[in-house]
Amino acid sequence: MNLENVLDLDRGDPLAAKRGEFALPDNVVYLDGNSLGAMPLAAQQRSLHVVEQQWGRDLIQSWNSHDWIDLPITVGEKIAPLLGAARGQVICCDSTSVNLFKSLCCALGMQKDRRLVLSQTDNFPADLYIAQGLNNLSPGEICKLEVIDDSEIEARLDETVAVLMLTHVNFRSGKLHDIRRLTERAHEKGALVIWDLAHSTGALPLELDDWGVDFAVGCGYKYLNGGPGAPAFIYAAERHHASIRQPLTGWMGHQKPFSFSGEYQPAPGVQQFLCGTPPVLSMSVLDAALGVFEGVDMDELRAKSMGLSELFIQLCQSNKHLRELILVSPQNSHDRGSQLAFAHPSAYAICQALIERGVIADFRAPDILRIGLAPLYLRYKDIWDAVQILAEIMMTRCYLQDQYSRPQKVT
Amino acid sequence: MNLENVLDLDRGDPLAAKRGEFALPDNVVYLDGNSLGAMPLAAQQRSLHVVEQQWGRDLIQSWNSHDWIDLPITVGEKIAPLLGAARGQVICCDSTSVNLFKSLCCALGMQKDRRLVLSQTDNFPADLYIAQGLNNLSPGEICKLEVIDDSEIEARLDETVAVLMLTHVNFRSGKLHDIRRLTERAHEKGALVIWDLAHSTGALPLELDDWGVDFAVGCGYKYLNGGPGAPAFIYAAERHHASIRQPLTGWMGHQKPFSFSGEYQPAPGVQQFLCGTPPVLSMSVLDAALGVFEGVDMDELRAKSMGLSELFIQLCQSNKHLRELILVSPQNSHDRGSQLAFAHPSAYAICQALIERGVIADFRAPDILRIGLAPLYLRYKDIWDAVQILAEIMMTRCYLQDQYSRPQKVT
Repeated sequence: MNLENVLDLDRGDPLAAKRGEFALPDNVVYLDGNSLGAMPLAAQQRSLHVVEQQWGRDLIQSWNSHDWIDLPITVGEKIAPLLGAARGQVICCDSTSVNLFKSLCCALGMQKDRRLVLSQTDNFPADLYIAQGLNNLSPGEICKLEVIDDSEIEARLDETVAVLMLTHVNFRSGKLHDIRRLTERAHEKGALVIWDLAHSTGALPLELDDWGVDFAVGCGYKYLNGGPGAPAFIYAAERHHASIRQPLTGWMGHQKPFSFSGEYQPAPGVQQFLCGTPPVLSMSVLDAALGVFEGVDMDELRAKSMGLSELFIQLCQSNKHLRELILVSPQNSHDRGSQLAFAHPSAYAICQALIERGVIADFRAPDILRIGLAPLYLRYKDIWDAVQILAEIMMTRCYLQDQYSRPQKVT
Repeated sequence: MNLENVLDLDRGDPLAAKRGEFALPDNVVYLDGNSLGAMPLAAQQRSLHVVEQQWGRDLIQSWNSHDWIDLPITVGEKIAPLLGAARGQVICCDSTSVNLFKSLCCALGMQKDRRLVLSQTDNFPADLYIAQGLNNLSPGEICKLEVIDDSEIEARLDETVAVLMLTHVNFRSGKLHDIRRLTERAHEKGALVIWDLAHSTGALPLELDDWGVDFAVGCGYKYLNGGPGAPAFIYAAERHHASIRQPLTGWMGHQKPFSFSGEYQPAPGVQQFLCGTPPVLSMSVLDAALGVFEGVDMDELRAKSMGLSELFIQLCQSNKHLRELILVSPQNSHDRGSQLAFAHPSAYAICQALIERGVIADFRAPDILRIGLAPLYLRYKDIWDAVQILAEIMMTRCYLQDQYSRPQKVT
């Protein structure tokens, strides 16, 4: 594999033109789109309009004239096709954690006598915290969390499990769960499933309806490119809508929010997941950002994501200076999401050295160099460049210099 | 009172220059700053910077280089002086409703055997919904809501009450509670208090520390001018920090969010109220918007707010065409917040007719014309103009025309 081969890959990339829809800084290879997606130009334009015209000039009337009031639904319906969800099942609101709390309350409320929430030890910690927090509200009464190794999940599923709560793509290793299979196994035992799609939405084809998923949550600021801290979403299968009871019963989730009646009456369907007034600026920007997915074939997107990661691995394996980096992601592309994880005792310092040279990667404690591969705007040439720079860093061992060592304060 | 007297009031207004810090459309009198504050120019500038430079160019590194990670604290500390709160007790996060949920869980968790949440029948309905939602999670076990007329509150306070949950300024009438007095009465009976300050923060002097308040919440998009759906805030008195237990235990509220440990360990102090990743665009804009309060004397602000409302009432009373409008706000300025409510059977249509003529007022079901008085950017002359136009509408009875009648669909 030489540079000319790599440039050929870019020439043959059916998604190549999508990069032009993003603002990306010069001389940067951005390998952290799984933490914060790059900025779509349409999002930038919308931010100008929503601030200057909608807020600044049209003021309160924009709730109607610019359809702020419908934003949670509008955005939800734009996310739905990326999830394989028919209309009326996805809504945009709050943060992933808050939405996970709602869906946990919902799912547990639908299980008469079961309280056990089963998850995996290395699930995204915040997801476990949310179950712990719910449990602390009334210990043992609402929720009991059990975490096990992911290899034990199928065997552990039995009639005591109320909810199987998992993240599709592991945040460190990128290891992928088989949603369809685990959802089927859970359902066989009468358990409900909640899938956290933070690291898969917008990067992998999803078929939540076909897979029979009960609830799912995910965030707007990773592969959906909705901007820092963009609002999250929640999916609830239509068959459960009549059973939804979630405790964050704010006025936006009321059947008639403007009747200001003293009794809460839930809106129909997923709208009852709404709580307070949404952050309109952030949600509008996410709305515009989702436009880049128009016309994108998710299978092509997945194929490119796998192509990028395979190129990265291949280039690493063929360079003797990179042998110290141990791939901890699954070897087979089909078993991982759109990211790669390499273990190295000096992963933090290597990551800092990369960033200084314009290759923005990420570090995850204790020793993981994380490479996010956002196929909408990354080129194969970017992977080539990144690996060249990484090899130079490893060859010169420059990362051993003090300037790259871990600062005391964070992160 | 004639136009020249009114112009004199503007000439003598110590806050007159503040209007220049806002973008306000021409030929509009904006009397709905209590629903959505007008746009500070600094907020507009910040929105440009946070999108183009921080997100667009600096990408993920902005969490450190532009201090996104500290935004909830930074914004909280800017709000704190407006609440009369010493440092370390206010943080910006989520929505008012979500924060009310957290503070309710906290306060109830601190009461061993009491479950009763006392509130008033015409509290902002969303606040009541939140208590209802919490109760539904485990009926009778966590929370029991009782609502009564506000005249009965003091008499009803006894040793069965766990939490007194009230809104400082009534969202319809503008009627003001005496926070200090009710907090003292509640404490005498061992109850804790939660105050919703949505309609008072940024409009009235507040002294939460002096008044001994336990918890408070409020929103960023009314008198704080933080933009549509701006994030909310939560106040917790320092003496309670060791007792805080709230169930929305997201990763941002963890002691070491980047250690990614599987066990939730709350951050110290108010930081443990944080849950998921905040909407950075919206929160940055609120941060910039709060700059307009620099150098503002809250007593002067309150004096102007009362002056504006007194002028409005006086002009109404001296105009025979306005006698049909019944003031339902307290007559005495000291007993109401920064808004006026007038009852009229055709309030909706009158409001629509006002809006068409550039006077942006608000309607609240069933029959209230609501006039918000944001003293940072309203002039006495605006009140004069608004009343002139209102009088013309009432005199001609143009509001009876079909075009102003209530649409079927909303609101």
